Amino acid sequence: MLKECLENVRNMVPLVHNITNYVTVNDVANVLLACGGSPIMSDEPEDVEDITSVCGGLNINIGTLHKSSIEGMFRAGRKAGQLGHPILLDPVGAGASALRTDTALELMEALDLSVIRGNISEIKTLAFGTGTTKGVDADVADAVTEDNLDEAVAFVKKFAKDARAIIAVTGAIDLVSDGDTCYVIRNGRPEMGKITGTGCQLSGMMAAYVTANPERKLEAAAAAVCVMGLAGEIAWERMQDGEGNASYRNRIIDAIFNMTGEMLEKGADYEIR
Amino acid sequence: MLKECLENVRNMVPLVHNITNYVTVNDVANVLLACGGSPIMSDEPEDVEDITSVCGGLNINIGTLHKSSIEGMFRAGRKAGQLGHPILLDPVGAGASALRTDTALELMEALDLSVIRGNISEIKTLAFGTGTTKGVDADVADAVTEDNLDEAVAFVKKFAKDARAIIAVTGAIDLVSDGDTCYVIRNGRPEMGKITGTGCQLSGMMAAYVTANPERKLEAAAAAVCVMGLAGEIAWERMQDGEGNASYRNRIIDAIFNMTGEMLEKGADYEIR
Amino acid sequence: MLKECLENVRNMVPLVHNITNYVTVNDVANVLLACGGSPIMSDEPEDVEDITSVCGGLNINIGTLHKSSIEGMFRAGRKAGQLGHPILLDPVGAGASALRTDTALELMEALDLSVIRGNISEIKTLAFGTGTTKGVDADVADAVTEDNLDEAVAFVKKFAKDARAIIAVTGAIDLVSDGDTCYVIRNGRPEMGKITGTGCQLSGMMAAYVTANPERKLEAAAAAVCVMGLAGEIAWERMQDGEGNASYRNRIIDAIFNMTGEMLEKGADYEIR
Repeated sequence: MLKECLENVRNMVPLVHNITNYVTVNDVANVLLACGGSPIMSDEPEDVEDITSVCGGLNINIGTLHKSSIEGMFRAGRKAGQLGHPILLDPVGAGASALRTDTALELMEALDLSVIRGNISEIKTLAFGTGTTKGVDADVADAVTEDNLDEAVAFVKKFAKDARAIIAVTGAIDLVSDGDTCYVIRNGRPEMGKITGTGCQLSGMMAAYVTANPERKLEAAAAAVCVMGLAGEIAWERMQDGEGNASYRNRIIDAIFNMTGEMLEKGADYEIR
Repeated sequence: MLKECLENVRNMVPLVHNITNYVTVNDVANVLLACGGSPIMSDEPEDVEDITSVCGGLNINIGTLHKSSIEGMFRAGRKAGQLGHPILLDPVGAGASALRTDTALELMEALDLSVIRGNISEIKTLAFGTGTTKGVDADVADAVTEDNLDEAVAFVKKFAKDARAIIAVTGAIDLVSDGDTCYVIRNGRPEMGKITGTGCQLSGMMAAYVTANPERKLEAAAAAVCVMGLAGEIAWERMQDGEGNASYRNRIIDAIFNMTGEMLEKGADYEIR
Repeated sequence: MLKECLENVRNMVPLVHNITNYVTVNDVANVLLACGGSPIMSDEPEDVEDITSVCGGLNINIGTLHKSSIEGMFRAGRKAGQLGHPILLDPVGAGASALRTDTALELMEALDLSVIRGNISEIKTLAFGTGTTKGVDADVADAVTEDNLDEAVAFVKKFAKDARAIIAVTGAIDLVSDGDTCYVIRNGRPEMGKITGTGCQLSGMMAAYVTANPERKLEAAAAAVCVMGLAGEIAWERMQDGEGNASYRNRIIDAIFNMTGEMLEKGADYEIR
């Protein structure tokens, strides 16, 4: 099934509109191409509606907000909603500044998001900010571990239900849930955290996966997480003596480029809860 | 002759002012350095006239437009025109949004462009938008192939004459014409399309080539196309097992870095029509 | 002692707020991660004070100025000053445009800078612009060489004293001074100039070094210069046949990633004047 998700991306070549930060934008574009999609970037409010209209999905990343790009996010998001395009939100740095937190919450309020992908800290910020997680969830730890996995799964499921979106929390253990089902994914390498933007890259790829798999968005989102983590494992095995995070970045994108459905099925390490 | 164009770039080290998109800007800068030029980036309207004044050429790329950068393009372009600097326009996404199409057409109208480089779809948008290609050219296909080459060459020649600029259409077959002569170039690899920004990179390098070869701009533009395509071929041959588009990107820039006039003369695959 | 500076960065993992240009921002982020720090980028005026508040240091780079990012620099810088965070200024292109020169001078005036790092031309622009270097220093050459080293050291010391900041002038020979002491550093390779943004990368890393070594900022700044230059030497030795500036860029970041205190102590090539 993950295999089918991957192959649908390669066959459909989904065009994804990205409103994303200028730090990791080039890697996001190359990862989208590597996985079989096609990227286009535009954040100017007067440009975004036309651009989103020629695309199949929208990836919104708040890593480097500008006043005009915020307006672009809302305009693109509303247009994408009208067109029935899936929208992914990557709330980079939510919790670190009022502008980021507020913008993310307002985007959640205004737009019909298909997926929200972030680290546990960002996702908790959104969950608490929307007031949907009062009570049982307030104690979710700052990292998902084998020890707190039950609570974390319950938290992610509840927030997904409340937010009416697929929630993907990535870290050492990744969780992807639509409210009913939760994928618990154990692919990846800790060294991926030494590369800037692996999260942004995953969000771009996930937008392509969800766009190319409209009938099984949850599985597609989980497949993208597995692809990224597995690529991190494959790339790490290929590292040569003396290489570091720059080469690792390239090797991960290369591994995504060369990933097949068979490799994904074989290498994906997940359980469903 | 291509050799001389390349060597003039390495000897003159032309400083090129780039107003370009934030997706591929780093690669554009590194390609400019690789080919022997020197890059400087600036798009703020209050900054661009000073910057263009210390440069030898101007590369305008509309890949991620902002209102202020659009103003920067016009101000830099007028200043460059006054100084007699060559100006290259890369109309990224013309046809995909009204803002892009209109901006490209207005830049064509306002500025004395030396070169316009884009894919066939972008170039057709400009040709039809300026109303200069009514009649015979309306049927140009969406890709230049051996089958429609005669029509495509005629279209590019006519548009070059009407636009009073060198037109470079890049794709599987590349066409570069000043209206009278058309270079038909068959270097390159289809896998180059899996890297973001090879077109932007070529535009940056082409601006350096035209700047360093003021007496033979057509040949210089064609030489830049050959360098890019040949670098794509050399880089592909050097690809190792397990590598993908990230490594290919690096290998192409490396190949440009190491390209000599002799390699170019030997590897360039073109005819003149 | 350089060893201790390096290890303090790896142990403290300083979070550095970067307001930097969009050309080299990704490399700056990866170099910060490679050296043991952690990057965050934000230039929107409404966002920068919150972001700087969660960081330990601030890196301001004027490589691609925008009106709003200039405001962001002042707001972030004032906040960082209130919080006692070290601030580094990289005056990219000062002297090439009035906006860059004026902005750099105004930032010097308004903010309590810990370090200013640039090439000799940029630093001279600031020194002459502030009127602090009249007289003896007016004849400093445009490149620091063994022949003019005495004058260059005197110039850098005087400007450091006048500016009340550590001044780092990088080039074939690097000078780092707090006004009293001057490190003269001879690490590095001329080929580093063929990569875009090695200066920006060094500034980012230097901000991390100064942040993690508050009691010995001068030595930390010098250590960062040695790390960058030594990484350039190590990376050059590892270059394979056919590689160029793209691979060199990656290899340098990789070498920073793998640099140990012992390697630094052994490879650093400096004298103190």
